[in-house]
This record gives sequence, structure tokens and C-alpha cells, in this order.
Amino acid sequence: MATNVERTGRYFLRFLETNGEMDDQDQFSRRLSSRIGELPPRVPFGAVPSPEDVTARWQTLPLPTASRDTLYGRLTAEDIATFTGHIENCLGAVQLPLGVAGPLRVNGSAAHGDFYIPLATTEAALVASYSRGAQVISEAGGCATLLVDEGVGRSPGFAFRDLVECGRFVAWALTQLDAFRAAAEHTTRYGKLLDMRTVVEGNHVYLHFDYETGDAAGQNIVTFATEAICAYIAERSPVQPRYCFLEANLSGDKKASAQSYLSVRGKKVTGEITIPADLVRRRLHTTPERMIEYFGMGSLGGVLSGTIGVQGHFANGLAALYIACGQDAACVAESAVGVTRFELTPEGYLYGAVTLPNIIIGTVGGGTSLPTQRACLDILGLAGPGHARALAEVCAGLCLAGELSLTAALSAGEFAQAHQGLARGALASAPAEIVRSCRD
Amino acid sequence: MATNVERTGRYFLRFLETNGEMDDQDQFSRRLSSRIGELPPRVPFGAVPSPEDVTARWQTLPLPTASRDTLYGRLTAEDIATFTGHIENCLGAVQLPLGVAGPLRVNGSAAHGDFYIPLATTEAALVASYSRGAQVISEAGGCATLLVDEGVGRSPGFAFRDLVECGRFVAWALTQLDAFRAAAEHTTRYGKLLDMRTVVEGNHVYLHFDYETGDAAGQNIVTFATEAICAYIAERSPVQPRYCFLEANLSGDKKASAQSYLSVRGKKVTGEITIPADLVRRRLHTTPERMIEYFGMGSLGGVLSGTIGVQGHFANGLAALYIACGQDAACVAESAVGVTRFELTPEGYLYGAVTLPNIIIGTVGGGTSLPTQRACLDILGLAGPGHARALAEVCAGLCLAGELSLTAALSAGEFAQAHQGLARGALASAPAEIVRSCRD
Amino acid sequence: MATNVERTGRYFLRFLETNGEMDDQDQFSRRLSSRIGELPPRVPFGAVPSPEDVTARWQTLPLPTASRDTLYGRLTAEDIATFTGHIENCLGAVQLPLGVAGPLRVNGSAAHGDFYIPLATTEAALVASYSRGAQVISEAGGCATLLVDEGVGRSPGFAFRDLVECGRFVAWALTQLDAFRAAAEHTTRYGKLLDMRTVVEGNHVYLHFDYETGDAAGQNIVTFATEAICAYIAERSPVQPRYCFLEANLSGDKKASAQSYLSVRGKKVTGEITIPADLVRRRLHTTPERMIEYFGMGSLGGVLSGTIGVQGHFANGLAALYIACGQDAACVAESAVGVTRFELTPEGYLYGAVTLPNIIIGTVGGGTSLPTQRACLDILGLAGPGHARALAEVCAGLCLAGELSLTAALSAGEFAQAHQGLARGALASAPAEIVRSCRD
Amino acid sequence: MATNVERTGRYFLRFLETNGEMDDQDQFSRRLSSRIGELPPRVPFGAVPSPEDVTARWQTLPLPTASRDTLYGRLTAEDIATFTGHIENCLGAVQLPLGVAGPLRVNGSAAHGDFYIPLATTEAALVASYSRGAQVISEAGGCATLLVDEGVGRSPGFAFRDLVECGRFVAWALTQLDAFRAAAEHTTRYGKLLDMRTVVEGNHVYLHFDYETGDAAGQNIVTFATEAICAYIAERSPVQPRYCFLEANLSGDKKASAQSYLSVRGKKVTGEITIPADLVRRRLHTTPERMIEYFGMGSLGGVLSGTIGVQGHFANGLAALYIACGQDAACVAESAVGVTRFELTPEGYLYGAVTLPNIIIGTVGGGTSLPTQRACLDILGLAGPGHARALAEVCAGLCLAGELSLTAALSAGEFAQAHQGLARGALASAPAEIVRSCRD
Repeated sequence: MATNVERTGRYFLRFLETNGEMDDQDQFSRRLSSRIGELPPRVPFGAVPSPEDVTARWQTLPLPTASRDTLYGRLTAEDIATFTGHIENCLGAVQLPLGVAGPLRVNGSAAHGDFYIPLATTEAALVASYSRGAQVISEAGGCATLLVDEGVGRSPGFAFRDLVECGRFVAWALTQLDAFRAAAEHTTRYGKLLDMRTVVEGNHVYLHFDYETGDAAGQNIVTFATEAICAYIAERSPVQPRYCFLEANLSGDKKASAQSYLSVRGKKVTGEITIPADLVRRRLHTTPERMIEYFGMGSLGGVLSGTIGVQGHFANGLAALYIACGQDAACVAESAVGVTRFELTPEGYLYGAVTLPNIIIGTVGGGTSLPTQRACLDILGLAGPGHARALAEVCAGLCLAGELSLTAALSAGEFAQAHQGLARGALASAPAEIVRSCRD
Repeated sequence: MATNVERTGRYFLRFLETNGEMDDQDQFSRRLSSRIGELPPRVPFGAVPSPEDVTARWQTLPLPTASRDTLYGRLTAEDIATFTGHIENCLGAVQLPLGVAGPLRVNGSAAHGDFYIPLATTEAALVASYSRGAQVISEAGGCATLLVDEGVGRSPGFAFRDLVECGRFVAWALTQLDAFRAAAEHTTRYGKLLDMRTVVEGNHVYLHFDYETGDAAGQNIVTFATEAICAYIAERSPVQPRYCFLEANLSGDKKASAQSYLSVRGKKVTGEITIPADLVRRRLHTTPERMIEYFGMGSLGGVLSGTIGVQGHFANGLAALYIACGQDAACVAESAVGVTRFELTPEGYLYGAVTLPNIIIGTVGGGTSLPTQRACLDILGLAGPGHARALAEVCAGLCLAGELSLTAALSAGEFAQAHQGLARGALASAPAEIVRSCRD
Repeated sequence: MATNVERTGRYFLRFLETNGEMDDQDQFSRRLSSRIGELPPRVPFGAVPSPEDVTARWQTLPLPTASRDTLYGRLTAEDIATFTGHIENCLGAVQLPLGVAGPLRVNGSAAHGDFYIPLATTEAALVASYSRGAQVISEAGGCATLLVDEGVGRSPGFAFRDLVECGRFVAWALTQLDAFRAAAEHTTRYGKLLDMRTVVEGNHVYLHFDYETGDAAGQNIVTFATEAICAYIAERSPVQPRYCFLEANLSGDKKASAQSYLSVRGKKVTGEITIPADLVRRRLHTTPERMIEYFGMGSLGGVLSGTIGVQGHFANGLAALYIACGQDAACVAESAVGVTRFELTPEGYLYGAVTLPNIIIGTVGGGTSLPTQRACLDILGLAGPGHARALAEVCAGLCLAGELSLTAALSAGEFAQAHQGLARGALASAPAEIVRSCRD
Repeated sequence: MATNVERTGRYFLRFLETNGEMDDQDQFSRRLSSRIGELPPRVPFGAVPSPEDVTARWQTLPLPTASRDTLYGRLTAEDIATFTGHIENCLGAVQLPLGVAGPLRVNGSAAHGDFYIPLATTEAALVASYSRGAQVISEAGGCATLLVDEGVGRSPGFAFRDLVECGRFVAWALTQLDAFRAAAEHTTRYGKLLDMRTVVEGNHVYLHFDYETGDAAGQNIVTFATEAICAYIAERSPVQPRYCFLEANLSGDKKASAQSYLSVRGKKVTGEITIPADLVRRRLHTTPERMIEYFGMGSLGGVLSGTIGVQGHFANGLAALYIACGQDAACVAESAVGVTRFELTPEGYLYGAVTLPNIIIGTVGGGTSLPTQRACLDILGLAGPGHARALAEVCAGLCLAGELSLTAALSAGEFAQAHQGLARGALASAPAEIVRSCRD
């Protein structure tokens, strides 16, 4: 076993080793220092993909021909046309395997019904695990889900000379809400300014504007709306900031943040299920008691490792659903925080709940109009206007399904086998128990 | 503006409103309560996709026909065959637009050269922004990158009757490292047990095992290896736990965690660039001073919102690269933490650095063998064995490019326009400045 | 250097070593296991201290006689009488050295004037350092301070059968605010219910009640007021919780919590100062530039170590002031979070700011009526009603003074010498520079 | 109820209101802006307290005479002499009521016996609550405690031109451990360098040095030792940093930090107790089941509020013990983090455990030699060399006692009454149940 010092040193020692010819630190310097040599061509910029544009790009750049065939060879002009407004410098498309889980019965305030859930992933066992969880939830009568809050924010920052100017600015800003709302809502048909929050840190003021964004995920809506507010401020404020920024990194955009629990970013949803003990035994191969034991140890494991909230792997289900359904996959970084809880009911049933404060999702805009993504939303029956809240509740139900299945697999000692059997792609070689767990 | 109470109540009031027929809380109860009605058919489980398997699934399930045509219609039997071991319950495939950024010059300890970077996303402006940042880095001589540590862990948990048993167990475990290593490395050709760490919390013991996993991301490797250690413990430990779990949620798997900075999960990389002021002005349309001002306000914005580390949007670049290159997209949740720093050098240049403690990445295994994903790795020149460390350094360089471009856009007041122009997909309608910023 | 494993094992190996007679793990077991032997007498309970009570306690318990003389020997019956309502099981009193720092000029919204600040501590260099900082602030014209928000909360928790019951309960609770306020304010002359916030986590509901508490720190006020609300709920709620608790650990009471930045706990204050460069040089022996360098490195040091906010040592000044002035010293745990920022102004001056979201402080109630504590408040001129907000602003100014002095000492390379000179108690032996730094 | 905007505005509106004569923002400006007027006298610096020194200070400064009588009137020259090396600018002393809790039976690896615990506080109910918990623990056979790790660190930071210089520096530093140790240990009789850890963040390197510090809390020891290492680096390093600082804020000094769980700061201790159900009922007036219910809700309450770890109020007991026993009270900020866990054993008993990663404590140095503080250590039997580890285990036992008593009070619905009865200082007026709970 390595000491901390040896371990710290490994990267450097390895570097020297793997560059055999380098026998001194000068070599290290040469390798890491700026170089002057000629650059290969810049990627020619193009915002409107077309077959000519894509073909020209492959020809201009020193990229592998085989890759072109794979990534671009089978795309039609119609395919390429659908990418307009979604990509710059287009090279073609990547393809991800798509599986389906379910049905997942959701008895929610917005979602109500039985859902087959499309999941795009390259990781074995993911779909099997979520599907098992979804089916168990459905057999137990379906999960209840409740959309608790929603809103997406932007946080422009304003730097002043001193606190006196901050005070004058805030005092003015507090009287301008109607004007701010008017300016903001002039830029958008769907966005509505919900609230403003003020953070004063020395001579810096952050104004946090929170919006409803209809059925869109809404990051662009809130950007444009807040820019309009900033323009109004620039024109009218009795005290001008020394400088300001449209977003000063307080909004939590694309980042896991502790503030999610107290406020909301996107949609905050909670969901729950109660499962009879015999169903746990039959379908999950373990007992409620054993799952509670796992929860007791795993939730403190999360706390001790410094996570924001405590949960198992919300990220798995969310990433697969987001990719399939045209959501912004980067938002997994912020959406995959939350809390999972398991308890034993007085009747000896298993009670499970998940709470996700930060689901960033939409059924219009973003990638939702792309053909395969739209087809996935159609599988859910949630494409287009009027469905964003339901989609958020389905996300919560899906995460609940995943937590159930993961916790059960760890409790039943099946976690490793499931991955072993399925990752090797051979059902025949999978342990009988796993096959059974998926098939049953 | 809504009061907290009104805001809290919105979800409930909205629920009642949007279900016009519901004039009392009984309706609410009926909607959220478990239902007894018949379930639609379970997804028939299938781990080995084939045309027959996929076709049967579409026929068995009540899914939209149009979706089938879109998601499955054009796939060949060969396409489907490549999905084996990557998906269960296969329905077909989703397609994401692919763009290319760069070149990005990396002068790293592992990566060394000029890289064109494939990015799969549905979000306008993402590729343009990263490409601009990459080009500026390259024109400034390239970024230096340094892989500082690596390792992937599993954390089995053991529950004992009391601290006395914990003490006996730990005392024994500390003498068994060679045996643990032998057991672990029996399961894997590439994994190496690096270290063991012990956490005692009352009568619970977590053993954290840290592994090198060669060029694989390694989650399966460490699962199987740790299972072998657990089996050895079950057989030999002088004191048996009341219960134990292969993973007790301490490893940070798929979760942003504060422990990343002190240890490592995956690959820990730092990267830096120094950019002359005139290059900042010419290509980023702002000044080093203004970008420092943003950094001063934005880094505290991150702190005040309770993020783990402070950065802008690592998640954007990582998600797009992970999806393109066959990485586990769920790992964006843990990888997208870190620190960005900008400073003014004594010469008035802009200095920028990023540090990512948690890059989970591989060039073998996972989705890296799928055709389009493999083609993307080929564009990078980093497919197959021997390239994982270089890929991690490219990730750091990419994040640095993104932070530069984002910070510059916010500093130059171009952030909203860039999104507006590109999201609407019409270069013609984009503000001239943005087109220039991308084209130049 | 020790490996992780050796290090992990040290505690156990040391245990065996330091108990030489123990040559096996049975000894370990015997030591840690419950013992059956007879217990010494319980501390006889007494809530009303009197000379008789204290004397009897020393006689009843097997405590050292010399300790009695030291802790109790010089106290009069009057002294003891003043302890009534502040201590149970009284043994006497401990004495802490008291120093004074200042003057600190505060130009605040509540505090306005020049303050001499009483600080009780046993740690050398603390008073000297804060006094230096305070004097520099005053010479620069005084710090501006702004009380930004205030409120103290309690968070009762209610567990229901399911989400349906949660929804019914919340729907009812949202209509009962006037009744809640009436119930709460019936228990207190000074407390006012400001706001209610609802957190739904599965079948758990947390209601967070926020109060103004006049000039008292307010923890008891909000406890009694919230108990009255809970009683009202128990009597009137249309749906009864399975169980509930007056405080369900969401309020952040006595704990550093990330939610402080978004809400408030106690008083949220920000303060700032701008210091000419020559004053920095003359009195702090360094330059604004060098202090900015420290800030750049130190603030990321805080981020990398996972603190809540980034600052140097708010705890030092707050603990010393809290103890001197009869505040609840345990509240240092929650109050000592916040943000420090240093910047260079366009004129080359040093700008510094601190923001503390969580100052729990009062000028009535708690320990403020004890003789020495009241005397310390009199030194500040802030004893009794009407002064709590000013005291909070003085706290912010004091923390700003400490951050200035600490940062300057680290920047000037004087940090170690200051401690060395002063801890050894001999001015003569202190490095001349330090003496100068304190004396000047 | 106030809207967010109204709430945000309160501070400003209040400011204008409470300064009735101010009818415009200019008044606000005048109040918060720097003032030019004359300053009152500086506190005359004095590091060696003596009656002459103290008397002169009171005469020189415009402080209240009555305060002098209270704070200084009864102190003898001998009293003042004992303060040497503990305070600057001495004014006298403050007095805190001292109570005693226990006995607390500790079956630890270092502490072993029955302890009466001195607690200095001004807050009613604190001693009563901890004493009740301690007695219950003792009646159940005593708590087991285990010191798991120890070490105190300093983290100097070094800024270089670029990553190349960082790499050269780290490569050199890794070979200098023996020299670093020699330099460090030359400054101290008790300190031992345990380990070095390296953090590279762009062109910044933090070296974290971890020390054992014998029976001292050790902050000064590690400061002086690390300064010697820095001097060695300044003399010998082949690459000189652009600048460096003795402490770059990575060590967690005086701050709650998430890194504590993975490393250690001070002493890391875990402790546990198992309590029969009838003892819970008889002495705590509740049941194990009800306490588990509280734990289930309270631990997630902590998670949702963003605390580091989950616990109730470690700060209460630690602050009272630290003040009584001459510890650095500011360290409550870092020590009061950790984890509490309650479970039901298979036999229906209550199992409770606490883990504190960060107890900063010593039995020599700091305030431990002051008369009343030394007397408190004598009550514990833990004064002087050889007792620091035992004192840390007693701290853990004390925190366990507090968590038990608090959780029980909340579970039994006695929390508010206990505070109400005891804060009003009249045993007669205390609810009978509380008196019973304390007396029994």
C-alpha cells in the first residue's frame, strides 16, 4: 500500500516513467510548456447544418474517414435539417441504444397513468434495474407524486463602490417590481416573473429573479427576460453599478447546490410508494427489514462523504431519460440531488420516498423537437405543451423505482451479479437469480 | 409577487385548479391514492437485442407506431447487434446531433497534441462556445494539464453489535491487505488495489477500497473486485458482521461529493492557460480585467449558493463529450464539480486554471466500443488502451475552454445574444458580433 | 511517513501499546464493554443555586477540595444568587481573562459610533490582533455595516401516513396563518411571527416558522411560540399526524448550515472598509496587493476544504465577544460562517468586506443580566433593550477587523511570531516588529 | 405574512423608520459613509497584565466606572498574574456560572472510569439536560468510546508561475520529508510530523502537514513547526514560489469543514451506548421506538438544511466543557460537527452512537493552566500530561449524553417545558414532570 506521499508522487513519477526518454525535469518542462508550432486548421464555424456544410467540414479538417462514414454516412439531408438550431459545427450524429422500462404507474398531481419509460444509455443493467423497480411500484398500486414548487432563476450581479450605493440601489429596485415584470415578460410568451430575492455581500448586490417558464425547461427564457430587466436597470437606476453581469453564478445553473432544498430550481417533486412485504420478497428477493438496514447505513455513508442530500443514484435514471427525451443532459449535474428515505410501516410494509428539488425539464423547446427525442416523448404520451409538470413527476417516480431496485440488489447481494451477467451481454451466462429477477 | 405562503401553496392550489372538476380534497385523495385497476403488460425482459427481440417488444407493448418507425425503422440487424451488452429491453436507438470544437492544443503529462473535440448535444451555442474557447487556448500556445491522482473506489459497509466487535474486525482487516489484494486482483486483469481506508461510525465500519482500473472507467471492475474481498471477509473474518453491503454509499458513486477534493474519484486533473491581453480583446471581445471582475463576483456567487467547489458550467462540456465518446453520462453528476480560477498576471495577461477532482472516464469498456462512440474517440485519436489518462486531460482542457468562453461572454455582455442567435438557428439573424465571435 | 493503513491502524495499535498488560483482543473487549461495578453518586439536582446548595453539592460528590476552593471559595451569596436561572447543579464559577480591543468605528444602519470591545479569551494574540484590526478600520474612517435581515426559526415536523394526508394538512395549514400567529404571539411580548415555509419530503411535512424576537437572541421565545402553534394544530387540524416533534432539526439551531445564505438565522449583517495603501503599509506592514494575493489563495483553500462560505477565523472574535457579553457560546457553531472578500480598488486601496448570515445575539435575556456580562455590554454601551441590531453590526465590524489583521499577519509573514511572542507572555521576548505592530 | 420583496426591503425600510429625521437617501448615505471626526484614544497595548497595567487602562480609556468595579474590583495581583500569556490589553475577568453533570461512565480506549463533568454556561436547562443523559448512560453500563485518529495540520500555500514550476516543486518536496521532519521537530518537544499531503490547483500548491501534538491542542505547535519547514523551503527549494503563506486556509482551522470526515482535525472519536427500553421509559419518559422516529425525521431535517453531518446540538456540551476546562472556545466552530445515529436493536433496546471527527482539545497549554480551568480539569481527573486522548473520549461521551437527552425531550414533548421551567429559575414553577426528569 502506498503512503500518502508515495501516492501524491505517483502522478509525477509515472509521468517520468512513461516518458522514458525524459531523464530530467527539463523534459517535464518542455512537455507542459506553451508551444509555438503551427496549429492545424480551426473548425470552420457553421450554425446552420446542411449536407454541404457537414461534408465541407469533414473535408477541411484532418479527421478520420472511417469516422465520417460512421457518424455521417447514413444521414439524409432531412436528418441534417432537423439539427438546425441544436448544434454548431455539425459533423453528423451519434447513436445511443434505447431501452424501455415499465410500466410505471404514477398517481400524481400532474402525471396520472401507466407510463412506459424510454431510457437511452450504454450501461448494462441500467434499464433492467429501473424496469424492475417500476414494475414493483406498479404492482403495489403506483407511486403518489406531488409537484411541490417550480421556478427557474437568473441571478445578475451588480458591483458598486460601497454599501451606501448598494443600499440606494436596493431601495430603488424594491420599488420597480412591476416595471421589472413588464420588461421581462415583454421578451417571452410563456415566462412569468414570480419573485425577486436580494443578496447583499459587501458592495456586491445579487438580484435573483425566479420565473415560471411554462412547458419549457426555460434557461433561455430566463436569460432573455433577465437581460431585459438589466437593460431597464442600466437605463433607469438612480445609481449605476461600476460593473454588472447578467448571471453572477448564484442561480445554481448546471451545478449541484445546497440552496435547492430551500428554494427550487426547475421543478421540485416528491414521490412515495408503500410495498407489501411479500411483494418485496417475491420480486426484489429481500425483505423490508433488510432494505431499512441498508438505508440506515447508506444514508450516513452519503452524509460522511459530503454529498448534497442523500440518495443512491438518481443520476442513472435521470441521465438516461434526459438523453432519450431531448432534455439538456448537462442538467443532470444539478437535477441529480435529493433525498431518498425508506421506512418500515407499522404493518411491516416497506415505505419509500424520494424528493428531487431540482428537476430541469421541458416538453417543448430544447431537444424535444428532434425526431428520435420527440418519439420518446410520444412513448410517454408527454410530447408538447401541457406536459412538463407530468414529466417531472414521472422523473420522480423513475428515481424512486431506481432507488428501490438498487437498494434491493445491494440488500439481496445481487448487485455485482446483475452487472456481471448483463454487462457481458449473455443472458445465458447471467446468474439464474438475476435472470429471474429481471424476467419475473 | 407571491409571499412564501402563497408560493408554497401554489402547487396545491394549481392542482385543484387544473382539475376543475375537483372541488374538494377528496378528489385530491382519489388522484394521489393507490389504484387497483389493471396494469398494462410488463415490458418483456430481454438482455440480448436482436431484430426479433426488438420487433416483438414493439408489438407486445401499446407503444406508438410512429415512434417505432423513428426509433427503430432504419436500424439494421448489425446495428442492433452492436448494442449487445449495453442495453436491456431494446427499442431501437436515439440520435443526437454531433458537433466539433477546436483544435484544442494540450501540453499535458498524458495528452500531448492538438485535438478536435466531438460534442453531442441538442443545445444551441454549446459547441460554438467551447470551440471558441479551445481556439483561443490553442492560439495562446496551448493549455498545460497535469493528471494529479487517479483511483476508483468501492465502500462496503459492515454492521456489528458494538464497538468492541468493530475494533476486533478492523484490527484483523488491517493485517489482511495482501489477502484482500490477492482476492481482488484475481477478478480482474487491469484493476489494482491501491489503498484501503477505514471509517468507523459507532458500530458501523466502512472499508473504502481504492483501485487503479487501467484504461477503463472501472465501476464494474471495482464492484467485482470488492465483491471478492467481501467473500473473503465472510469466510475468514474472526468476527462476523450482523449484516454487510457491497457498497454502503460512501464512495460518491454518481453523486457530487465534497470528499472529492481530499481524495480522488476517477482522475484528478488540473489545467491552466495564460492569454495575452490583446488576444483576449481580439477573440473574446473583453479584457482580462473585466474577466477578473467576473471571477470575483461569480466565485462568491457559487459559494453563497452552496455549490461544491466554484465553477461556471463544467457540466456542459463534460456531458457533451461523455455522450459523444461512450462514457457513462450519469457520471456527469459527480464529474462536474471542481474549481475555476482566473487571475491577472504581473504582465497584465489573463491566467486561468481549472481543477477537476472527479473525472470518471475510460477508453475501453462501457460505451466506448459502440460504432458512433468509437468513431468519436477516433476523432480525438484516443480510442482503445493507453489513452484514458490523456482523455482525462483533454476533459480538463475542454472545461477550461468552456469557462473562458462563458466568462468572456458574460463579461462582454454577449451571453444572451449568443444563445438568442444560435438557438433560433439562423446565422443571418444572429447579432453580427456573435457571428464574428464564432467565425473569427 | 505512515500509509493510510498504518495510520488507520495507529489508534488500535496505540491502544494495545498504551495498555501494556493487554496482549490480546480480549483485553480490548474487556476495556470497551459495559462494566457492572457500582456507580458513584448521581449529581444531586438543583435548579436554584444558593450557598447551601453549592456547599452540599461539593460535600456530596467526590470532587477535589482544592477545586472547591478555587471555583467556589471566593463567591459570595450575592454572586451565587445572580446565577439563578442560568445554571443547574451549580458548583461555583469559572473566570476568564478579559481584554479590550479598539476603538472600532462603526458607521452602521443600527450601530453608530466608536466602540471599545470587550473580549474574553485564554488565547494569546487574539485581543492584540483584533485590536490592531479595529484601530486600522477606525483610522480609515470606520466600517460601514448593514443589517440585511433578521429572524429566528423553529421547524416542527409532522409525519403522516402518506402524501395524500400531507397534501390535506398543508392545504389546511396554509389557511391558518392568522390563527398560528395569534397562538404564537399569545406566548410572547416581543416575538412576532414573520413567515412560514413548508417542506414536504415524502410523507413528512416540516413547517418552518420564522420570528422576530426583539432584542433577545430568541431561541426560547420561538420554542414557546411554536409549541403553542403545535398545540393549536393538535387541536384543530383536520388530519392528525402519526407523530410530530416541536423541532425536527431543520432550523439549523447550533449548527453551521448552508441554508443560512438563502434565509437568515438570527441577524444577517454585511460590513465593509476601504483602506488607503499607506495605512496598510504603516499599520499592517504589508501591501494591499499582497493581501489580495492571500485572499486569492485562501478563499480557494476554504472551498477545497469544504467549508460553508469562505473566511479566516470569524470564530475567534465571535467566541470572545459572545463569552464576554453573555451570549450563548454554543451559537458560535452557527454564527461563525460567512464570507470574507478583499479587492483592490481602482485607486489602489484595499477593500474588505465580511458577510455573516447567522449572528445569534441579544442584549436582553440569556446571560446578559449576569454582572460581569452586563458590565461588558456597558463597555460597549449596548446593554438592555434597543441594542440587539447594533450589537450584531458591531459583531460584523469585529470580524472584519479580525480578517484584516489575520490576513495582514499572514501576508507580512508575522503570523507565527505574533503567536510566539505573545503566547510566551513576555513582551521583551516578542519580535520587535510585532511589538511595533501592536503598539503603534 | 411578508413577501420576499417586502422581507428583503424590511431592513432598509426599518432603517429609514428608526431614523425618523431621515426623509431621504442622503441621510442613509451620511450614516453609512466614512466619518472624519476625531477618534477616542487607542487602547494602550499591553501584553503583560499587572495591576498597574490594568488600572492604567481603565483610567486612560473612557470606560464606565461601574464596569471596572465589576470586572476588576475583586481581582488580586495574583489573579492578574495568572493571566500572563493568555490575554492582551487586560481589563479584568468575566465570570461564568459553573455546573456539574454526571457521573458519566466511559469505557473507552483512553478514558476509563466515572466522570463528573464541569460545564460553564449561562443557559438554563443545559446542565440539567446533559446530566440526565450522562446518568442514563451510566445506569446502562457506560458508553464505549474509541479514539480513531488524531492529528492537527497546517497548510502553507505556494504560488508559482505555472504548472511546470509546480511540478518541479512538488517533485522536490516529495524527496525532502526527512528534512521537513527534522526542521519541524527542531521547534517542538512534543510535536511529531505525521504526514504530508499535496494539493495542486493550477499554479498553486498547498502542502498540508499533519502533526501529533502530544497533550496540547497544538495550533501553536504546528504553526511554529510549519514555519520552520517554510524557512527550509525558502532556503533550499530549487524553484522559488512567487509568493507563499504559512497557512493558506485549507487546514479547516476554526471552521466547520466537510473534509473532517475523510481526514481528522484534532481527535476523531466515536462513542456508543445501548439502553434497555425500560430505562428509556423510566428516566427519559419516552420509548426507543419514538426516539427512532425522531431520528428518522431529524436526520433528514439536518440533511435538508445543509449541515455538515447530522446531529442535534453537539455545540452545547462542547462549548460549556471547552470554556470550563480552558480549551479554545473558538474551536467549537470546527468541533461541533459530526454524526448522531439511533437504532432499535433486535432486542428492542435503544442503540445510540455519536462520531466527532474534529475535537480540538488539550490538557496542557492554552487556558488549561489558569486556576479555575485547571480546577475543572481536576474535577475530571484529567489535568496535565497524559490525558488529552481521554478528554477527547469524554467529550464524545458528553455529546452522546446530550443527544440522548435532547432527543428524548423532543420525543416526550418535554422540550419546551424544560426550558420554560429552568430558564425562569424557579424550581417551584417548573412543570412537575421536568423536575422529576431531572431529579429522578
